[in-house]
Amino acid sequence: MSNDGNERYQRGLEKMAEVDREGCQRVVEVLKTIAPEFANYVVEFAFGDILSGPVLNLKTRELLIVAGLTAMGTAAPQLKFHLKAARNVGCTREEIVEAIVQMSVYAGFPAALNGLYAAKEVFDAEAN
Amino acid sequence: MSNDGNERYQRGLEKMAEVDREGCQRVVEVLKTIAPEFANYVVEFAFGDILSGPVLNLKTRELLIVAGLTAMGTAAPQLKFHLKAARNVGCTREEIVEAIVQMSVYAGFPAALNGLYAAKEVFDAEAN
Amino acid sequence: MSNDGNERYQRGLEKMAEVDREGCQRVVEVLKTIAPEFANYVVEFAFGDILSGPVLNLKTRELLIVAGLTAMGTAAPQLKFHLKAARNVGCTREEIVEAIVQMSVYAGFPAALNGLYAAKEVFDAEAN
Amino acid sequence: MSNDGNERYQRGLEKMAEVDREGCQRVVEVLKTIAPEFANYVVEFAFGDILSGPVLNLKTRELLIVAGLTAMGTAAPQLKFHLKAARNVGCTREEIVEAIVQMSVYAGFPAALNGLYAAKEVFDAEAN
Amino acid sequence: MSNDGNERYQRGLEKMAEVDREGCQRVVEVLKTIAPEFANYVVEFAFGDILSGPVLNLKTRELLIVAGLTAMGTAAPQLKFHLKAARNVGCTREEIVEAIVQMSVYAGFPAALNGLYAAKEVFDAEAN
Amino acid sequence: MSNDGNERYQRGLEKMAEVDREGCQRVVEVLKTIAPEFANYVVEFAFGDILSGPVLNLKTRELLIVAGLTAMGTAAPQLKFHLKAARNVGCTREEIVEAIVQMSVYAGFPAALNGLYAAKEVFDAEAN
Repeated sequence: MSNDGNERYQRGLEKMAEVDREGCQRVVEVLKTIAPEFANYVVEFAFGDILSGPVLNLKTRELLIVAGLTAMGTAAPQLKFHLKAARNVGCTREEIVEAIVQMSVYAGFPAALNGLYAAKEVFDAEAN
Repeated sequence: MSNDGNERYQRGLEKMAEVDREGCQRVVEVLKTIAPEFANYVVEFAFGDILSGPVLNLKTRELLIVAGLTAMGTAAPQLKFHLKAARNVGCTREEIVEAIVQMSVYAGFPAALNGLYAAKEVFDAEAN
Repeated sequence: MSNDGNERYQRGLEKMAEVDREGCQRVVEVLKTIAPEFANYVVEFAFGDILSGPVLNLKTRELLIVAGLTAMGTAAPQLKFHLKAARNVGCTREEIVEAIVQMSVYAGFPAALNGLYAAKEVFDAEAN
Repeated sequence: MSNDGNERYQRGLEKMAEVDREGCQRVVEVLKTIAPEFANYVVEFAFGDILSGPVLNLKTRELLIVAGLTAMGTAAPQLKFHLKAARNVGCTREEIVEAIVQMSVYAGFPAALNGLYAAKEVFDAEAN
Repeated sequence: MSNDGNERYQRGLEKMAEVDREGCQRVVEVLKTIAPEFANYVVEFAFGDILSGPVLNLKTRELLIVAGLTAMGTAAPQLKFHLKAARNVGCTREEIVEAIVQMSVYAGFPAALNGLYAAKEVFDAEAN
Repeated sequence: MSNDGNERYQRGLEKMAEVDREGCQRVVEVLKTIAPEFANYVVEFAFGDILSGPVLNLKTRELLIVAGLTAMGTAAPQLKFHLKAARNVGCTREEIVEAIVQMSVYAGFPAALNGLYAAKEVFDAEAN
C-alpha cells in the first residue's frame, strides 16, 4: 500500500520471476479474487522477505523447501510448485530425488513416495 | 549378521563418525537395550544407505534434515541431534538459522520458533 | 439403542439440521453402509455432545473448526463441509477468509492457501 | 446425567479398570477441575463406546493405539499411558517394541525412536 | 529498516501490547540474539499484518489461534502463550475450554487433553 | 548389489508376494524410473527387514499399519494399498473397520472418516 510496501512487493515480484513467473502469477491471481491482502503477503513476506534473504542461494532454498514440504505431506500443490521451481533455479533431477529420498528416514516412506510421485509428474512434464 | 550386513554397518559407522560419533553411540547404546534390531537399522539404513548416498554432500544433507525436522515439529531430540551434526559437518550458524527461518513460511512461525530455540541451545553449548 | 441414546441422537440430528442437513445425511448414509456404530457416534458425540455444548454459539464454533482443520491440513473433505456449514450458520465470507489467513502464521502459507482454495470453491458454488 | 448416560459411563469405568484404573482416575480427576463435561466424554465415549467395541480384543486395541500415537508423534503423555495399558492387558515387551519399530517405515525413524524411548521408560519402571 | 517497515513494526508493537507485552518482549529479545531478521518478522508480519487485520476482533482471533495450535499439537510453548493472550484480551475460561474441547472431535482426544492441561497451568498461574 | 543385499531383497520380494504382489510390483516399477536406489530400499528395508520381522504376524502388522496411516492422514495412496494388503493377509472387514474407528479417539473424526471412505472403496472393489 505505502511506498515501502511497494519496495518489498517489488523485491518479491523479482524473486518470483526467478523461481516461476507464470506459476506465481496464477497463484496470486486466484488469491486476489478471494483474499487480496493475503495475495500481498505471499509476494511481500514469502518471496520479498524470506526467499530474498541472504546467506543461502536460491538453489539451496528450493531444495530445503522441497524437503520440508515432503516431510509435512500436507501440501501437495505447493510441493509440486516448488519441485518445478527447484528445477527452474538449477537443481538437477538427481539432487531433487536425493532430497526427497532423504526424508524417508525422517518422515517415513509414504512421505518420500508421494514426494517422488510428484517429482515424476514434474519431470515428465519437462520432457514434453 | 552376514558379511554384507557388515559392509553396510561399517559404512554407517563411518558416516556416524563424520556426523557426531559420541551422539550416535549414545543413541545406539540405548536402542540396543530395548530394540537391538532397530539399532542395526539406524546404523545400516539411516546412516549406511541414505546418509551415505551420492549426489548431495553431507553439509547439504544435514541442512535438509534440519529443515524437514523443523517443519514436522514432532522430533525435538532428533532436531537437536542434527543441529549439532550440521555444525559438525561445516554448516555455519547463519546457514542453519536461515534454513529454519525459511520453514516459517511453509510450516508456520511456531515451527520456526521452536527450531530457533533448539538452535540457540546448541550454539550456546558450543560457546563453552 | 436405549432411550437416552435416542436423546443424544435426537439432539445431534437437530444440530445437524442447523448446520447442513443434506450434507450430514450424505455422510451418515455412507457411514451406515460400512460402520453403522460410527455413524451413530458422529450424530451423538460430534453433533449431539460437542457441537451442542453451551458457552460458544454455532457461528463461533464453525469458525474454530475451519481454523483447526485448515491448520491440520489433513482433512480436505471435512474442511469443505465446515466451510459450507460456517456459511449456513451465518459466518460472512470475510470472517471465514480472515480465520483461514490467520492460520498462515501458525501452520504455514500452504495450509492457508489450501484453505483459501477450498473456501473459493464453496463460495463459487453459492453464486450459482 | 440420565440413566443411559450412566450405562455408558459404567461401561467406561469397567474398561478403564481393565486398562489402568489408577492412571485413568488421575486423568479424570484433573479433567474434572477444568472441563467436567470432557471428563465424562473420556469415560463414556473413549472407554465406554470405542474401547468397549466388539470385534477386536483389548490387547490388539492397545497395540493399535500405541502404533497410532507413535506415528502421530504429538501425544507423548497419552503414548506413555497406553504403553503401560498395553502391558496391563497382556502385550509382551517384544510385541510393543515391534509395533513401534514398524512405524519407522510409515512415520519415520524419529517417531519410532521417541516411541522406543517412551517404552523404555515404561519398561524400566516395571522392573522396580 | 525503512519508514514503512517502522509503520508495520509500530503497529505490531501496539498489537503485542494488547495481547501480552511482557511475553512478547521475552520472545523478541531471545530471537534478536539468534535471528534478528526473524524477530522483525514476528513483530511486523505476525502482529503488524495478520493479528492487526480487520473483520475479526482480537478475542475471536485468540480463540481461533488456541483452536489451531491445539489441533496441531506441535507448538506447546506457543499454545501456552496464546492461552494467556486469550485471557488478556477478554476470553473467559469457559470459552477457552470449549474451544479446546471442540478440537477433540477434529484432532482427537490427546490434542484436546494436552490443550486442557496447558490451559489448567495458565489458569492456575492466574489464581496466584 | 552384493549377495547379502540379494538375500534381503529376496526376503522382501517374498513378503511382497504375501501382501500384494501386483500392487507392490506397480510401485517398484514406477520407483525404478525415478529413484532406483529407493526402489531397492522399499523391497529390502520396508519388506525384507521390517515387515519380515518376528514376533508379530502379518495380519497384526497390517492392522497396525492401517491404524498408523489412518492416524497420520497424510498418506492416502499408501493407506489404500495397506487396506487391500490387510484383506489379502486375512483381516476381516470388521477388524479393519474397528481399527479405523478406534483412531477417531486418538486422531479425530476426520482421520477416521477418511480411513473409512478408503476402506469402502477397497471393499467395494472386492465385491466385483
